[in-house]
Amino acid sequence: MPALDDLLTCLRFASVSTDSKHNDDTRACAQWLVAKLQGMGLTTQLHETPGHPVIVAKNKHVAGRRTVLLYGHYDVQPVEPLSEWLSPPFEPTIRDGRIYCRGATDNKGQLIAHVSGLAETLAQHNDLPVNLTILFEGEEEIGSPNLKPFLEAHRQELACDVVAISDTGMVAEGVGTFTYGLRGISCMEVKVHGPSIDLHSGIFGGAVANPATMAARLVSTLHDAEGRVQIDGFYDGVQPLQEWERKSWADLGDGAAETLALTGVPALFGESGYTERECRWARPTAEVNGIGGGYQGEGSKTVIPREAFFKLSFRLVPDQNAERILDLAEAHLRAHAPRTVRLEIKRGHTGSAYLMNPNSALGQAAQRALKTTFGGKVALIREGGSIPIVQAFKDVLSADTLLLGLALPDCQAHAPNENFPIANLEAGIRLNQALLRELGA
Amino acid sequence: MPALDDLLTCLRFASVSTDSKHNDDTRACAQWLVAKLQGMGLTTQLHETPGHPVIVAKNKHVAGRRTVLLYGHYDVQPVEPLSEWLSPPFEPTIRDGRIYCRGATDNKGQLIAHVSGLAETLAQHNDLPVNLTILFEGEEEIGSPNLKPFLEAHRQELACDVVAISDTGMVAEGVGTFTYGLRGISCMEVKVHGPSIDLHSGIFGGAVANPATMAARLVSTLHDAEGRVQIDGFYDGVQPLQEWERKSWADLGDGAAETLALTGVPALFGESGYTERECRWARPTAEVNGIGGGYQGEGSKTVIPREAFFKLSFRLVPDQNAERILDLAEAHLRAHAPRTVRLEIKRGHTGSAYLMNPNSALGQAAQRALKTTFGGKVALIREGGSIPIVQAFKDVLSADTLLLGLALPDCQAHAPNENFPIANLEAGIRLNQALLRELGA
Repeated sequence: MPALDDLLTCLRFASVSTDSKHNDDTRACAQWLVAKLQGMGLTTQLHETPGHPVIVAKNKHVAGRRTVLLYGHYDVQPVEPLSEWLSPPFEPTIRDGRIYCRGATDNKGQLIAHVSGLAETLAQHNDLPVNLTILFEGEEEIGSPNLKPFLEAHRQELACDVVAISDTGMVAEGVGTFTYGLRGISCMEVKVHGPSIDLHSGIFGGAVANPATMAARLVSTLHDAEGRVQIDGFYDGVQPLQEWERKSWADLGDGAAETLALTGVPALFGESGYTERECRWARPTAEVNGIGGGYQGEGSKTVIPREAFFKLSFRLVPDQNAERILDLAEAHLRAHAPRTVRLEIKRGHTGSAYLMNPNSALGQAAQRALKTTFGGKVALIREGGSIPIVQAFKDVLSADTLLLGLALPDCQAHAPNENFPIANLEAGIRLNQALLRELGA
Repeated sequence: MPALDDLLTCLRFASVSTDSKHNDDTRACAQWLVAKLQGMGLTTQLHETPGHPVIVAKNKHVAGRRTVLLYGHYDVQPVEPLSEWLSPPFEPTIRDGRIYCRGATDNKGQLIAHVSGLAETLAQHNDLPVNLTILFEGEEEIGSPNLKPFLEAHRQELACDVVAISDTGMVAEGVGTFTYGLRGISCMEVKVHGPSIDLHSGIFGGAVANPATMAARLVSTLHDAEGRVQIDGFYDGVQPLQEWERKSWADLGDGAAETLALTGVPALFGESGYTERECRWARPTAEVNGIGGGYQGEGSKTVIPREAFFKLSFRLVPDQNAERILDLAEAHLRAHAPRTVRLEIKRGHTGSAYLMNPNSALGQAAQRALKTTFGGKVALIREGGSIPIVQAFKDVLSADTLLLGLALPDCQAHAPNENFPIANLEAGIRLNQALLRELGA
């Protein structure tokens, strides 16, 4: 199966965008995609950016046809913790009908499904039912810092009627799923500096503040016991859930049982008054993605560490403002930090939350394509993850985005043993073809 | 100078007792010491233990002489963070009259000072003024787990009138310092387990408890804002400071200014009502020696980590019970942990606090030896660090311990760029000779 061969090839590039040691791998992946798209007869260009390159490819555009921008990303998350992987993270390995590899589901499997759908259609008809513009980037996992400027600089070239992306999830195997909302994100790293060197905790303990303790105390101010964020103004502008959404999501079945089983946590957690899906899809959060300081090795080492850090990300919902959230968080942390330590705060990437009307004309076309591909009833959902570029498409290109995900809940995106079912690769090829037919009609 | 050559040789052994990768280095250091002591004419034995070996060496004991047990340790702390060292941690390097190396001050510099003092005396007189028993161990930095059983098993062989140790500090350069009290220690490692794998913080954030956040929240329950420990019963039995101690310590000068300068912290910290020396020497603490969880690398990775950990050590004062403190801490942590995570608590080593009367006959002999060596007034202090074996000498051998330290406040024990002044090596040789003369008189 050529689609599978292509996916395996694409997966072998260790295109970890956040880690500069992998810059060559990331570029090699982009170059392989360029060659692939050119080989399909698409006019393809690799555009340099201050970071990883952007790929733009087009068929011959014909006046009167709808223009569809197909977006995907060829970069992947880091692989740590390496010891948790059952097979090497960049050697795609097939077990029980699934391909295990970093990037298998996020986003290379879904991206290659579209590329393969296009390749089949072009091979059969030497044409597509729409004007197609492909836009693949290599910085999604680090917040797409260079894509919005790229959109602005190439506004004419990228003009389109609608954007299509497969980078979201299906509610269950075989259930076509249309995602009409995403959470936004704001990231921040905080360092807590204390003494100029690690100190002997016996000699100095009791007379100097411990940066690890102080980092923990700062983190503890971020939430109440049920996870409600305690930063002043954090919930300003948060849109309440609509009744039809709550009902539609409740109809999807017992999300709590599924999440318990998927995650293996001892018990679920979250704000009272909201179901677990509502907590994940429509409520904002503050999460510690990493914390560290002091001795990390085996046994004990009785030091007061010179510094400690924590990495925060906030998931946002309409209409929170991502930059304002960082302002509020910084003010909160500085107000709560004692003068016995020094804070260093580094802002990371941000992206707005996204919400569209799933029953617009374009939304209905997407729902028909999903029904053709998967049969049965299409699930209408929001997702908790963030694709900040979706809001950028709205802002710069004035285009809505159709999110037609192919990831199953247990595909372990961002985690060890990430995987993608071969059946979803095949379904994705058919979905690409059905979607372009519907949009071209 | 043969003493310096010996010290440099001894320092080159990377005898990190907590790290099993260094077991061969630790043993090699012990073997070198055995050869050295044998070469001086002492009857020397290397005793195997379940961990690192113990060395016992004796001169020919003569009835009617006082028996002095001289204790030291040849193991050292880990060297991390390696990047902070100005010269390689196991290549002793001399700069401005100080020897920089892991173990330079704690404890190899002080141990070799005694060995060299003995070597000189034996070379001159072929005799010592006391019955000497040397006891050197290789597990002090991991809490001496095998030394107390060793003492019990060799009670007769190690019987003595007094113990002498140089493993503590001098209040300032050239000021003879007698340490009559030490804090005890209890160690504990806590793991907070959540999901079975690292989760995508967008997909799952809001519905599952974050182990890094929960670890931080647990740490934050340990103290109030000024560092008073909030564990129920923690202060039970804590002996109040005596007036003569408070006065004597205040007479040592401005400890706060010195600690600020030494540590480089933005401001000091500690319980109100106590000076910084009192906080460090006579008040108990709870310190986080290490904390970790989630992404530790460059940039961001938006996960909810599967687990997080923190390593705690408690410094104890008379009459806290080290095992009971671990019971209380475990009960506190379990009571404060939400059911959305699972705690795994691993107890580490413990050691009692120590306090002797500095004006006993033996204490006065020690003070005279210090005065002979350094001149001026002898400082009477307690110390914040822990040498649990001192209490074991009291319990098993019924012997008090004379703590005659040679470390300066900026010798950076346990920290990068640990160092020891060559002048203190020379003073330590004279102190050994003066002490044995006083004790032999």
